[in-house]
Amino acid sequence: MSGEFDLIARYFAPLAAEAPGTFGLRNDAALLPSLPGSSIVVTADSLASGVHFRPNDPPELVAKKSLRVNLSDLAAMGAKPLGYLLNLALPKGGNEAWVRGFSAGLAEDQAEFGVSLYGGDTVATDGPLLITVTAFGATPEGTALDRGTAQAGDLIYVSGSLGDAALGLAVFNALLPELDEVAAEYLRDRYLLPRPRVALGQRLLREGLASAAMDVSDGLVADLGHIAKASGLGAELRAANLPLSAAAAGVMELRPDLSASILGGGDDYELLFNLAPERTEEIARLALELDLPLTCIGKMLPGEGVRVLAPDGEVIEVDKPGWNHLA
Amino acid sequence: MSGEFDLIARYFAPLAAEAPGTFGLRNDAALLPSLPGSSIVVTADSLASGVHFRPNDPPELVAKKSLRVNLSDLAAMGAKPLGYLLNLALPKGGNEAWVRGFSAGLAEDQAEFGVSLYGGDTVATDGPLLITVTAFGATPEGTALDRGTAQAGDLIYVSGSLGDAALGLAVFNALLPELDEVAAEYLRDRYLLPRPRVALGQRLLREGLASAAMDVSDGLVADLGHIAKASGLGAELRAANLPLSAAAAGVMELRPDLSASILGGGDDYELLFNLAPERTEEIARLALELDLPLTCIGKMLPGEGVRVLAPDGEVIEVDKPGWNHLA
Repeated sequence: MSGEFDLIARYFAPLAAEAPGTFGLRNDAALLPSLPGSSIVVTADSLASGVHFRPNDPPELVAKKSLRVNLSDLAAMGAKPLGYLLNLALPKGGNEAWVRGFSAGLAEDQAEFGVSLYGGDTVATDGPLLITVTAFGATPEGTALDRGTAQAGDLIYVSGSLGDAALGLAVFNALLPELDEVAAEYLRDRYLLPRPRVALGQRLLREGLASAAMDVSDGLVADLGHIAKASGLGAELRAANLPLSAAAAGVMELRPDLSASILGGGDDYELLFNLAPERTEEIARLALELDLPLTCIGKMLPGEGVRVLAPDGEVIEVDKPGWNHLA
Repeated sequence: MSGEFDLIARYFAPLAAEAPGTFGLRNDAALLPSLPGSSIVVTADSLASGVHFRPNDPPELVAKKSLRVNLSDLAAMGAKPLGYLLNLALPKGGNEAWVRGFSAGLAEDQAEFGVSLYGGDTVATDGPLLITVTAFGATPEGTALDRGTAQAGDLIYVSGSLGDAALGLAVFNALLPELDEVAAEYLRDRYLLPRPRVALGQRLLREGLASAAMDVSDGLVADLGHIAKASGLGAELRAANLPLSAAAAGVMELRPDLSASILGGGDDYELLFNLAPERTEEIARLALELDLPLTCIGKMLPGEGVRVLAPDGEVIEVDKPGWNHLA
């Protein structure tokens, strides 16, 4: 494979061509746009081959996932995405076709989300491929959604549907041979390609709707546990209210033993947020406007920990609160 | 070793405690400080064990090097450092003592450079340890030093001394057994611990002194080649004028065969910059004020490429323009 400078010039410099502060990646660093009245929000997530994606996943989709998990973190803060830096540790010997596909995926998502590449670095490694994306976005000055500010009595909402990504991985792992192909394809796609809820996050922040928020990356119960702990509260979830896609609902009929994927499955990248009960009407309107289901799934309470209640009022034991991405 | 959340809580959250926008690392992202009249500059460099540092280098010093190579990139843009994100890929099984030493090194450098940790991520890897630091800093709004703006006739300056880091690595690799221990220790230290020229970079930008700048990370000739190419010019270096430390000068007497370390050795993290000839007096004053040698080593010319002239006017062939960090 070509050296670092060739790779940057051929595949990555074009991704930085639109943004003036990048100087075409020729400098040691980049200048972010000046946005009076805004604050900059930053986040950086690393994805390892064999952990966060499967080694043979298409590079276009690995690129999009690497970017989108970071955009999801920006969404959880209510930020509008602006740009990103890319640090690649590429296995020695390299694979230029993989880099080409990867950069093509980034180019498509730059158009989709209105972001540009602002820099980064490539190194060769004896280990597995590792991708670090640092994303930055803008919020109204001095503001951001926070996971530590939920109030007792707040409702718990989640966007979209839960468990699809974990079930998609189960499809890839041949654990659901009985599933029809349409449902299988839907679930695989949800695993491969997160939909960061960037419009929702911005609206929640700008309209003061959410008292707390984060994205669901480690699994619903684990992530709600983070909100509860950071806010000094407990949380109660209603299992019957969890939003399922048609495909996931179908799986639950065939394989009720996989219900832990709904409560504990990660990689959904939906937004989990809290709301004062008097704001529910605004949320209902917002869901219609964004064409995105926003579902009330429980309530914040004094105390600590996350309880999940079955329809009969029994407490469901959750044996897998965290999520090991490829497990 | 403890899990990710434990590690973050124990070793990394304290590094974020001082900066309000980090929320103690509890959120998905961090809010950068609002600095009216400033622009934010970002850079991200990755360091791999066995490439950018030696696997048994003390973790405190690996931490400082990881941070400082990024601060050097900020210095090359003229930015004042503000903070950083840290993404660690840790070999599976882990080594908590290493993480403890690493975080202690970061804490010391946070005090030294006035920066805070703003976030990041840890992943487990089957491969070697990999460290990615994203650093951000501030410049007067809309401004930055740039490597593509040198003018023909500009003088070429460099800070500090050249080749020390490469010679330090030669000491570690037992290539200089005849060297006295004081010199050997000086050179080893220069390899292990870069001194990013952050005060110099800020002065060059704010006083409009440098027409172009970058840091010397890949080696003098290679990096000057980047300035020349980006500026559409050629460059002429005077070998006799290159600033050497006493230790490096001593090595050159013992081992003139190692002179390629001066022209091509990387990891010095000095600033290389260009200057209109009428500004030399200001640079001389600045060197005294910063207590840092600033040495004129050549001139930018129409044309292309980098020529190195020996004292007799002969052109010196440079056979190793780039730098393979541990080679």
